[in-house]
Amino acid sequence: MVAPAGSRVVATTGPVLLIGTGLLGASLGLCLRAAGVDVLLQDTSPTQLRLAQDIGAGVPLSEWSGAEPSLVVVATPPDVADRCVVDALRAWPSAVVTDVASVKKAVADDVLGAGVVGAGLASRYVGSHPMAGRERSGAGAADADLFYGRPWVVVAHAGSSLEAVRAVRALAGDVGAFPIEMDAATHDSSVALVSHVPQLMSSLLAARLASAPTEALGLAGQGLRDTTRIAASDSRLWTAILAGNAGPVAEVLKEVAADLADLISHLDRAAALGPLRGGSVGAIHRVIEAGNRGVARIPGKHGGAPRRYAELEVLIPDAPGALGRLFTELGEIDVNIEDLSLEHSAGQHVGLARIMIDPARLADAEASLEARGWRIISHTGDTT
Amino acid sequence: MVAPAGSRVVATTGPVLLIGTGLLGASLGLCLRAAGVDVLLQDTSPTQLRLAQDIGAGVPLSEWSGAEPSLVVVATPPDVADRCVVDALRAWPSAVVTDVASVKKAVADDVLGAGVVGAGLASRYVGSHPMAGRERSGAGAADADLFYGRPWVVVAHAGSSLEAVRAVRALAGDVGAFPIEMDAATHDSSVALVSHVPQLMSSLLAARLASAPTEALGLAGQGLRDTTRIAASDSRLWTAILAGNAGPVAEVLKEVAADLADLISHLDRAAALGPLRGGSVGAIHRVIEAGNRGVARIPGKHGGAPRRYAELEVLIPDAPGALGRLFTELGEIDVNIEDLSLEHSAGQHVGLARIMIDPARLADAEASLEARGWRIISHTGDTT
Repeated sequence: MVAPAGSRVVATTGPVLLIGTGLLGASLGLCLRAAGVDVLLQDTSPTQLRLAQDIGAGVPLSEWSGAEPSLVVVATPPDVADRCVVDALRAWPSAVVTDVASVKKAVADDVLGAGVVGAGLASRYVGSHPMAGRERSGAGAADADLFYGRPWVVVAHAGSSLEAVRAVRALAGDVGAFPIEMDAATHDSSVALVSHVPQLMSSLLAARLASAPTEALGLAGQGLRDTTRIAASDSRLWTAILAGNAGPVAEVLKEVAADLADLISHLDRAAALGPLRGGSVGAIHRVIEAGNRGVARIPGKHGGAPRRYAELEVLIPDAPGALGRLFTELGEIDVNIEDLSLEHSAGQHVGLARIMIDPARLADAEASLEARGWRIISHTGDTT
Repeated sequence: MVAPAGSRVVATTGPVLLIGTGLLGASLGLCLRAAGVDVLLQDTSPTQLRLAQDIGAGVPLSEWSGAEPSLVVVATPPDVADRCVVDALRAWPSAVVTDVASVKKAVADDVLGAGVVGAGLASRYVGSHPMAGRERSGAGAADADLFYGRPWVVVAHAGSSLEAVRAVRALAGDVGAFPIEMDAATHDSSVALVSHVPQLMSSLLAARLASAPTEALGLAGQGLRDTTRIAASDSRLWTAILAGNAGPVAEVLKEVAADLADLISHLDRAAALGPLRGGSVGAIHRVIEAGNRGVARIPGKHGGAPRRYAELEVLIPDAPGALGRLFTELGEIDVNIEDLSLEHSAGQHVGLARIMIDPARLADAEASLEARGWRIISHTGDTT
């Protein structure tokens, strides 16, 4: 299959200015440069900046004499993202500005509270959060495939222009991510649940090992390794993320604390009375059962979790930007991507995209995509 | 390298009677049958028994007319293990009897409290706990390699005979596991920390997803998947395990609850006052840092955790039972295996064993193993 005549290779025209050249910034730069987009780099650390340039993520802004950036991506730590966004809105009066911080309400509140609304600058700001990362950080860990197949949350505020939202959605699609629009509060409570609380539970668990007897650690198996893997994450970055999303995180943790207190009281009772008296067995069973039900709701390719989505298998041609074009066109026909899995060989973008969508939209989506020249390999309805 | 002339292929002579033919029992049967040991099977479920026989794990006891078992392995759920052990000690007056339940003090207390001491039967009982498992259960999930390279905790009581301990250590080595001797209380507090509490933290976390909005679940990434993978585990089995080890588990969970309460109070303060006031940033940072320190102490092949062990690389010849013989001989020269990783091709047992031992024993262990004909590929000292 050939891309329709006249279609653009990538939607983002550039130049794109990346403020902050850590893992996310440098990965974005690599990916955009590979698509031929001009990428300008800025970082408070000259070493980090040079490293990002050396791996091919772009050129330092100070060495650039071409056109002004049309899109600025703030990829700094979350606690300075608001200031960098405000500075960028002022410095580049025709650019769309987005940030990639893991918390969105705190950043947006601070941006919108900094006088940009009155100055008529706010319409060019749209928040975003690519759900991608690694345990390693810095430009040295950058990976052009970091965003491939991952959700990218696009968080407009009430005054964001449609043009700005489209530019950020296009950026997401161009780097292989699929855009999901959400308001800031929904984003923050969602990531509290699926990212921030898991981080803290892993850290609280791993903390118990700090003073554990060596002989106990010798019995560690895959279960402990899996549950504590993310406890190795960067403590400075995570402190800023968690402090910035303290309210939603505390809300979920209070539910955990209530369940934990109940569990402990039943374990105490089991230890005192023997396991078969006092109702403790039922209480322990409820905890494990509730976990069974919860984990079964995680969608996607890992394990046989039940799904309430229809699935479309679409052939992705070996052309730059093809996956991003698919995401853009699904947006145009108003079909949300609930989840996605990709089969592709390393270094190639040809492959199969398995797209989970609302079963009610299946027939329509299939017809519309085929009319636009996409090849549908298979579809399945409600697979629950 | 050829195995020294006259060495036995496996130490276990059999017949071995397996009571309970679920995942562990059937896997043991497969492994022992492959080494030519006679394996007899018993199960309260005729279907499970037939399935175990059909996959080649042994023959039903009721169809056996050969010698009496010399070793009985009780591989039932933990809440009936004590009764099965007592019955086996009475039924087979010359057999060593062990169980593979995940809790050891409760089983041993119940066995020794059931009149077997007075009857002179207790010396033939030794507890064990192979640190091996899968998320799937039953004979259908059996795997002859399940124990390969895993720790197998051997838990003697004060009256266990040396002969009985040797028989259980030999069984562990024969199926490719490395035996570690521990008393029951140390075992139970160790597995509370590295296995039972991780299970509960994973379940408590996954329980939050049971009523989560679908849009939040769409943002799930690898971190959530890793931390909740074991939340899918069998709720009946885990209820019995946790009820049987309630005291040690509650002790660790109380430490978690204290840290969690402290964290919640600081997050509440950050949400109320803003993140940069009231000391909340320092408190959040301490939680993540403590997790960093804890996870770094997990030994083994996954990740670059610092180790305080010396490492010996030993060539394992392609001969049945070679790895078990290495474990047995390390026991004979009184060197404890702190951790182990193996490189071997699927279906083959030739390969490299990387053995972590006390650095003080390195020179001695190397000389003794070489004198016994083992080929040492490399060694490294204290790698901290």
